[in-house]
Amino acid sequence: MGKRNLYLNNTPVEEARIIYKNALKDRIKMEYEEIPTEQSLGRITTEAVFALCSSPMFNAAAMDGIAVIAERTKGAIEREPLELKKQEDFIIVDTGDPVKYPYDAVIMAEDVLEIDESTVSILEAAAPWQHIRPVGEDIVCGEMLLASMHKIRPIDIGVLFSGGITKIKVVKQPKVAIFPTGTEIIEPESEPKEGDILESNSRMFEAMVTSYGGIAHRFPPIEDDYEKIKKAVSDALVHYDIVIINAGSSAGTEDYTVHILRELGKVLVHGVAIKPGKPVILAVAKDKPVIGLPGYPVSAYIGFENFVKPILTMFSGEYGYESNQVKAVLSKRLVSSLKHKEYVRVKVGEVGGRLVASPLSRGAGAAMSLVRADGFCVIDQNCEGIEAGESVTVELYRSMSEIRHTLVSIGSHDLILDLIGDLMSFHDPGIYMSSTHVGSMGGLMALKRGEAHMVPIHLLDEESGVYNLPYLVRLFQEPMSIIKGVKRIQGLMIQKGNPLNIKGIEDLTRCRYVNRQRGAGTRVLFDYKLKLLGIDPLLITGYGREAATHMAAAALVSSNSADAAMGIFAAANAMGLEFLPIGEEEYDFAVPVKYLDLPEMLSFIRVLKGEELHHRMDQIGGYQYDLAGEIQYLS
Amino acid sequence: MGKRNLYLNNTPVEEARIIYKNALKDRIKMEYEEIPTEQSLGRITTEAVFALCSSPMFNAAAMDGIAVIAERTKGAIEREPLELKKQEDFIIVDTGDPVKYPYDAVIMAEDVLEIDESTVSILEAAAPWQHIRPVGEDIVCGEMLLASMHKIRPIDIGVLFSGGITKIKVVKQPKVAIFPTGTEIIEPESEPKEGDILESNSRMFEAMVTSYGGIAHRFPPIEDDYEKIKKAVSDALVHYDIVIINAGSSAGTEDYTVHILRELGKVLVHGVAIKPGKPVILAVAKDKPVIGLPGYPVSAYIGFENFVKPILTMFSGEYGYESNQVKAVLSKRLVSSLKHKEYVRVKVGEVGGRLVASPLSRGAGAAMSLVRADGFCVIDQNCEGIEAGESVTVELYRSMSEIRHTLVSIGSHDLILDLIGDLMSFHDPGIYMSSTHVGSMGGLMALKRGEAHMVPIHLLDEESGVYNLPYLVRLFQEPMSIIKGVKRIQGLMIQKGNPLNIKGIEDLTRCRYVNRQRGAGTRVLFDYKLKLLGIDPLLITGYGREAATHMAAAALVSSNSADAAMGIFAAANAMGLEFLPIGEEEYDFAVPVKYLDLPEMLSFIRVLKGEELHHRMDQIGGYQYDLAGEIQYLS
Repeated sequence: MGKRNLYLNNTPVEEARIIYKNALKDRIKMEYEEIPTEQSLGRITTEAVFALCSSPMFNAAAMDGIAVIAERTKGAIEREPLELKKQEDFIIVDTGDPVKYPYDAVIMAEDVLEIDESTVSILEAAAPWQHIRPVGEDIVCGEMLLASMHKIRPIDIGVLFSGGITKIKVVKQPKVAIFPTGTEIIEPESEPKEGDILESNSRMFEAMVTSYGGIAHRFPPIEDDYEKIKKAVSDALVHYDIVIINAGSSAGTEDYTVHILRELGKVLVHGVAIKPGKPVILAVAKDKPVIGLPGYPVSAYIGFENFVKPILTMFSGEYGYESNQVKAVLSKRLVSSLKHKEYVRVKVGEVGGRLVASPLSRGAGAAMSLVRADGFCVIDQNCEGIEAGESVTVELYRSMSEIRHTLVSIGSHDLILDLIGDLMSFHDPGIYMSSTHVGSMGGLMALKRGEAHMVPIHLLDEESGVYNLPYLVRLFQEPMSIIKGVKRIQGLMIQKGNPLNIKGIEDLTRCRYVNRQRGAGTRVLFDYKLKLLGIDPLLITGYGREAATHMAAAALVSSNSADAAMGIFAAANAMGLEFLPIGEEEYDFAVPVKYLDLPEMLSFIRVLKGEELHHRMDQIGGYQYDLAGEIQYLS
Repeated sequence: MGKRNLYLNNTPVEEARIIYKNALKDRIKMEYEEIPTEQSLGRITTEAVFALCSSPMFNAAAMDGIAVIAERTKGAIEREPLELKKQEDFIIVDTGDPVKYPYDAVIMAEDVLEIDESTVSILEAAAPWQHIRPVGEDIVCGEMLLASMHKIRPIDIGVLFSGGITKIKVVKQPKVAIFPTGTEIIEPESEPKEGDILESNSRMFEAMVTSYGGIAHRFPPIEDDYEKIKKAVSDALVHYDIVIINAGSSAGTEDYTVHILRELGKVLVHGVAIKPGKPVILAVAKDKPVIGLPGYPVSAYIGFENFVKPILTMFSGEYGYESNQVKAVLSKRLVSSLKHKEYVRVKVGEVGGRLVASPLSRGAGAAMSLVRADGFCVIDQNCEGIEAGESVTVELYRSMSEIRHTLVSIGSHDLILDLIGDLMSFHDPGIYMSSTHVGSMGGLMALKRGEAHMVPIHLLDEESGVYNLPYLVRLFQEPMSIIKGVKRIQGLMIQKGNPLNIKGIEDLTRCRYVNRQRGAGTRVLFDYKLKLLGIDPLLITGYGREAATHMAAAALVSSNSADAAMGIFAAANAMGLEFLPIGEEEYDFAVPVKYLDLPEMLSFIRVLKGEELHHRMDQIGGYQYDLAGEIQYLS
């Protein structure tokens, strides 16, 4: 079966980091360069900066008015005004003008009475040095303006120029070579053949290196060829400060990275107790850090954050990263293994005045879960899990102001949710909607736990034949409302041309079905239909195979991984499938009355009623929206 | 006296903002441009982005191992292993490889026993679809990846490429023209003549525009010439989206901005109830925003933050700025006027587990106070002040992690403090020292209020002739220590060549003196010497004129604004003055024992004892450091 490196270690995260830092600390030298001050925004000073001149450079008028000799104004009072002669007793000054010997005070324009061209009168004596900014009041020549290792902000640039500093020594940005590897990996710009994977991690790394103060150089993908990879890395070690290889960092037949790095240098760590992200390689070659990162997007991201970012810091001097940590209430129990430190992606919502963290998919491949998540909840290696309701620390990577203005929707999935959220952000900038798809019942449970503002549902009450309302009556004590959504057509999504000649649900016993998850309204409807027809679910191949959304189910049918799935017309249409209508259902939004007047909810209702959305629904097809946006109160 | 616009309004900040936004909201149109995805980091989407392909694009192995037909593995158990034939029953797959019909499950390499080249044995049946990532598991073709008005992060770039998006529509960055004006203003690169002011605000604006997502174009300074400024602004209105004019925004003889803008368009607001920053002009010309900002650096900064940033936001769509607000205890009473909203710069320190905000200089010209500050405490217009000990909201512009690792020193000033802070940051990256200079007694009071970790002092006890210790004994109940600093020489700093032939303190009655502030150790020493000599302070011209630091006092003498000042040798030396020694004093650091083992304090002590600092002190001259870093405990 070829050469496999079955032995991946499980070094604890902190230990791995210390091993690596110790190996590098005498090898990494921070270098500097001198650049024009106007280009220094965001760069780090290498040495203290001292002012080359004072500011103001001279005693300056702090007001518009006249500069006088204080001594000569003595005795002026309201009933005995004093007349002063231009050039002799005073000169006119504007704010910022120099005030020179013998002048030693300024009288404000408002307090000066003009008699004629060259004479004024004052009603009060001036105190020496009044309304004068003394030389060096702001900056004294020779004063330290900025210390070493300071990240330059806009205000610093202003002060540097005031202090006469037009060039400045800053830390040189480390150059980072990024090598995507893998025979199946192709550039996203090219046309994929079957089995090809679009290269995306290296582009993400490129952006991360830039964000953390480095200069990234991304190379084109290298096929899985030992010699080619070795040569590329070996060459890069001459010109770059850090080398990243992605992926091939695990122990598969074609995972060459670790062997190459053992040949070129020393592998210090192979395999870290972190999830996702275990197959990490930390190596040193030619005195430079070489890091192998795993290929799954989430693993790649977490590996970078944990092991590349600290190394970038050693070069760039950027220590001031704020890890934006908040405390939130965990919405459901999280179990984790003692084998690793785990990074669980969470959605964070501010619902009813408290922050709630809801765990998302834990798969390493689910890059979209990183995009959808608001942050990580980190479970330490020595912790077996966290109970629902406990307070957890979340490392946010979305801003708190965004989170505060986000309408949290948890429940059943429909394509229009994304459209609505988009229209909300577009028309009410600064307002957001976050949708999590856990099915109708899952959403109602989340609402009961206080995690959501709103639940999209389509739940048929078998007894009454009525949609949605009966469930709310049964489940909630508090005043509830329903914001009417759409009527939509549910049916069977089947392959183009209907090769298996499926005519209805009864034909599903002779094909490969893919189901929706438990608690999904679509599944409730399917079970209801099976019951009506008296079909035993066990007779349907794939009844136990679950897809999380209409679109995911449609994608499986479209790729011939299944023959049929139940779903909405819109999803079948989007994936180019045929559609057998089964029935119409009501897709509405359950909302506690207390949340109806949130600005975010008002924005939601506006969009739901708006023509723009209706037009988009017409384009997709399969929706009726006559009542959309109407509010029904449960009595 | 020329033309003055004496009438500056006092429009409340919020009202001014609303007036301006309303005037602009139909005139500003967000524009877009299409750019390559890899260049989109930090840009804002103009429309929702939908995936062009799924990820994975096919059913893919989620593990290294073999792909099998689940049906054919039925019956395999540990005591009855099942043999499978290559190409017939299985194929070898690595993680990410496609798994195609008829294969529908993957068995991990670890669970496969190799029999020979083409035969393996398994101990357990495979469940259909096990260890397979179904097509579209991460991204389903057609799915919305990013909504409108979303700021693109590194992880988004990864997902965009996975979804086949190589180009993306983003909001066009607004182009901002920045005009520095003023006859006395010169480029910082040129050689200043007397009365010249180095232009620095426009460089700060340039950096602020960049930070807030715009493209800045800074023009060279224009002299105070009505027609020249008018022509420049008029031309810029053709090519730029926003025009900033600095300064000339007030009501002085040469403040043309408001007249020019009245001619070119409409002035909506002239004068805002904000301190610092009152002389702001908000105008519209050729349907474009034109903003006049005041010339004082702090006013310029606050004016930009309050009036330019919101306008930039209207163009750039960047609404997600986190204003980093924290609650802190105010260290001293702040009085403010009902006439304006006031922005008070504060230092924020974490001392003894609580955040303390200490107000800094309130002058509009003190740009260094912006650099030294950690944030603003905003006093609303309808508030007359805040009492010491009250909790206030601080808008931080330094990160909390930096603040947590900052040694807070408040007390007497010496040049070596900056050097020490610099060496601390350099040798212990991530550790900082913040020094505020309020004199020895001011520092001890701050320590008593819990605002500081450490107080640099040089206080002579007149009775015992002993420095520092007696004061701590008198003032503190809690266990205190003294970290020994340096002995330094105090004396009279006088002009080069000693034109007034000053021989000692007794000669000060016939010259212009500049004193230090009340509570400064130097002033205590001066008063002590006057008393010894029997000289009445009232006989000394300038006894009441105060400078806040040795350097500031030296600068006044150096610029012939005074003839003599008391100060340390180092300051006289730095400003090229002559120096008449008066006496030697002990400059030490008062520290509560409980703070002695803070990591920041240990770093401070290491630097104080180190050769690098001693070497620098030798270069400056006037210091003795035999005991530096020794700790004396008060019993």
